[in-house]
Amino acid sequence: MYHHTIAELNSKNLAPGIDIKPLNGKKGSMVFFYLAPGTDIPEHTHPHEQIGTVLKGSLELTIGDEKKVVKAGDAWCIPSDVAHKAHCLDAATEVLEFFAPVREDYA
Amino acid sequence: MYHHTIAELNSKNLAPGIDIKPLNGKKGSMVFFYLAPGTDIPEHTHPHEQIGTVLKGSLELTIGDEKKVVKAGDAWCIPSDVAHKAHCLDAATEVLEFFAPVREDYA
Repeated sequence: MYHHTIAELNSKNLAPGIDIKPLNGKKGSMVFFYLAPGTDIPEHTHPHEQIGTVLKGSLELTIGDEKKVVKAGDAWCIPSDVAHKAHCLDAATEVLEFFAPVREDYA
Repeated sequence: MYHHTIAELNSKNLAPGIDIKPLNGKKGSMVFFYLAPGTDIPEHTHPHEQIGTVLKGSLELTIGDEKKVVKAGDAWCIPSDVAHKAHCLDAATEVLEFFAPVREDYA
């Protein structure tokens, strides 16, 4: 099956205030993130490259030493193994990100 | 530079009615597609996996033998080398897609 609906994708709770809906291929994963206001994503790294944009709301996103409040119209590319963290601001926020290779841990 | 704005990404015209703004990493590409009403994307294949969703508008998207009118709320995963084509319907349409590996031809 090639076609899907976001509504029907499996939802996964990663941590309080962080829910995701991943669509995994063989080479990469497209992941919808749903962040509650005030949620922190602590600094972390992973070998997956991570490219994304904001669909709704805003968050403070720090990549390496670049901190920026991102909202609709912003985009980013986090290379493999570069530390990053995020803080969701006052509104429920939706972010769409792509990982390569596949986030097997999100399956 | 890890942070970008969509407005500042380089725009590329692929064919009449098809403009893109790619953000290329090392392992994959995030690509915004801007399609004019009525535009056809003829059937084609490529080795890149292609996972996407609709941000605005709608299009008839045929992947292999699965034809569907897709709009906001829909998503798809086109495996490597599977034939696909699209027809943009009555409204200007924006689609966000992720390719792995990188679309070097979009650089």
